[in-house]
Amino acid sequence: MASAFELTILGSSSATPTVNRNTTAQLLNVAERFFLIDCGEATQIQLRKYKIRFQRINHIFISHLHGDHYLGLMGLLSSFHLLGRINPIHIYSPFGLKEIIAIQMNFSGTNLCFETVWHELDTENPKIIFEDKILTVETIILNHRVPCCGFIFREKEREFSINKEQAIFYGVPLTQMVNVKSGQDAVLNDGTIIKNVLITRGKQKARSYAFCSDTRFDDRVIQGVKGVDLLYHEATFMHDLLERAKQTYHTTALEAGRVARLAKVWKLIIGHFSARYVDLNPLLAEAKTEFESTFLGEDGAIFNIPEQPFGRN
Amino acid sequence: MASAFELTILGSSSATPTVNRNTTAQLLNVAERFFLIDCGEATQIQLRKYKIRFQRINHIFISHLHGDHYLGLMGLLSSFHLLGRINPIHIYSPFGLKEIIAIQMNFSGTNLCFETVWHELDTENPKIIFEDKILTVETIILNHRVPCCGFIFREKEREFSINKEQAIFYGVPLTQMVNVKSGQDAVLNDGTIIKNVLITRGKQKARSYAFCSDTRFDDRVIQGVKGVDLLYHEATFMHDLLERAKQTYHTTALEAGRVARLAKVWKLIIGHFSARYVDLNPLLAEAKTEFESTFLGEDGAIFNIPEQPFGRN
Repeated sequence: MASAFELTILGSSSATPTVNRNTTAQLLNVAERFFLIDCGEATQIQLRKYKIRFQRINHIFISHLHGDHYLGLMGLLSSFHLLGRINPIHIYSPFGLKEIIAIQMNFSGTNLCFETVWHELDTENPKIIFEDKILTVETIILNHRVPCCGFIFREKEREFSINKEQAIFYGVPLTQMVNVKSGQDAVLNDGTIIKNVLITRGKQKARSYAFCSDTRFDDRVIQGVKGVDLLYHEATFMHDLLERAKQTYHTTALEAGRVARLAKVWKLIIGHFSARYVDLNPLLAEAKTEFESTFLGEDGAIFNIPEQPFGRN
Repeated sequence: MASAFELTILGSSSATPTVNRNTTAQLLNVAERFFLIDCGEATQIQLRKYKIRFQRINHIFISHLHGDHYLGLMGLLSSFHLLGRINPIHIYSPFGLKEIIAIQMNFSGTNLCFETVWHELDTENPKIIFEDKILTVETIILNHRVPCCGFIFREKEREFSINKEQAIFYGVPLTQMVNVKSGQDAVLNDGTIIKNVLITRGKQKARSYAFCSDTRFDDRVIQGVKGVDLLYHEATFMHDLLERAKQTYHTTALEAGRVARLAKVWKLIIGHFSARYVDLNPLLAEAKTEFESTFLGEDGAIFNIPEQPFGRN
C-alpha cells in the first residue's frame, strides 16, 4: 500500500483573515502521522470543515508568535480537553507560547486532561527537533521581525519496493521479505539466491517538505531548503510592493518563485496572501515567471508527493 | 427616522465550535452605537461574513474568561491595529483579560496604534458600567464556575414622538420641537398654547436587552432581568441532561424558558448550544413549553426591538 505524504492547506491569509481565507495553518500527513504546522485563529474550525480527525495530531509546530500563526492553539487545546484527549501533545515553538497558554489556562480554571510537552525552538541554529522511525523534522533559518523559523519534514531512507508478481514467480518465502525490503538478496528454502534487483522495483525515494512561513527573501532560506521536493513559501505581496515586503519582513511572489528556482525544488506552493488581493492569479503568474511548477496554497488545497522509485542504485 | 435596537448573533455554540456554529459573540446596535458582547474564537471572521464594519465597535463586553467567550479578542485587536484604527476601544471584563492580552502583545512585538481602555468588572455586585446620552449598561449576577456576569443594555427615558401632520396643521414652529419632544406643550408665535398630546404620538418606550451568557438556573438571574424586552439566555442542554447542566454550571432549554416566563420578558432568545445537538428544534420546543415567545439564536440571526409608543401617559 502506498504510504501517504500529503499536505492540506488550512489557511492562506496573512495578518488578518478574509471571508474566504483563514490565517496560516497546515496539516501534513506522513504515513498516517499527523503534524499541524502553525495554528492561526479558527484552525479548529478549519480542521472540522475539512473533516480531519484532529485528535490524531500529536505534534504541533509553531513558526513564530505573531497571532496569525498561533491564535488558534488555545481553542484547539481546549477542544482536545473537552473531547477527552488522552495522548500527550508535543508543541514546538519559540519562547513565550508556553507562558501565553499557561496564563489562559489559569484564568479559565482549566487543568488539561492530557500532557502538554513543550519544546522551545532555537530559531538561530537549525537542528533536528523531532525524529522517529520514518522521518525527521528540522528547523530552517528565516528572516522575520520576531524569532521565527521554518520546518523541513524529511522521510528517512526508505525500503526497497517489492515486485510482488516477480517475488511469487521466484517462490520467495514471506520470511525473506524484511531482508529484501532492506536491499538484500532473497534466499529460497533450498538455498538458491535470488538477486534483489529481480524481485524489487528499487528503493523508494525519501520525500521532503519545507515550510517557510514568514520571511524576507534571504539566501540562507535558499540554502536551507535546497533540493526538497515540496516547498511552501510565503508570498505576501506582488513584486510592485517590494519595498512594503522588505519593511514588513515578507516576500513577494516573484521572490518566492526565485527561491524555488535557486533551491531546485520539485514544486512550489505559495501562500500567506495579503488580504488586499481578492484574485490570486496575478500572484501565481508572477511566481511562475521564475518557477513554472508553482501552485496556489488556497484554503482546502491538498498536495501529495507520490511514491517514486529512485530507479536502480 | 426610527432608531435601531438590533441584535446580531455571531456565534451560538458552547465550548467547542462546530462547522455551522461559532462560539459566543453578539453585536448590539443601539441607534448606531455598536457594542460587541463576548468575543469567541473567529469573531472577526463572523463580523466580516455578516458585513459588519467592525471599526465602528467602540465597546466590548466580555462576560467571563472561558475561551469560547473571549478567544477572538486578540485577533480582533490585532486586526484593528493592522487596519489603522484611531478610536480608543473600551473593554469590560473580569480580572485577567488585560494580562492575557498584554503578554501576547509583548511576544508579538506589537504596540497598538490605538488606546485600549480596560474596565475590570466586579461580577458580585451589579452596577452600571457604561452610560452615555441614550443608554446604560449594567451587570447582572450569573452563577458560573469562574467569575462571570451578564449585561443589560437599557435605553434611557426617550423623547415624545412628534406627529408631523398634526404639528404642521397647528403651525408649530421648528424652534418649539425640542420642548415638544421633551413633553412640553408648544407655544405658537402669537402666544397660543398647543397641548403636547395634540401634536405627539406619546413617549417612545425605552427598550432593553439582557445577555445571560453562562449560568446555572438561579433566582438571582430572574430578578436581574425582570421585565426586559429581549432576553438572551444560554440553553446548553436539553432538560434530560439536567444533572450535566448543574455539574457544568449551565442551564437547560426548559429552565431558560422558565427564566423568561418568571421574569416576564417580551421575547427570549436561546443559544450556547452543546455541539451534541445537530437539530436545534427540540431545544426550541422544550423552551416553548415554558415560554411561547422563544427563538433560536443561531449564527447570523437578527432580532429587532421596534419602536413603540408607550401610549398616552
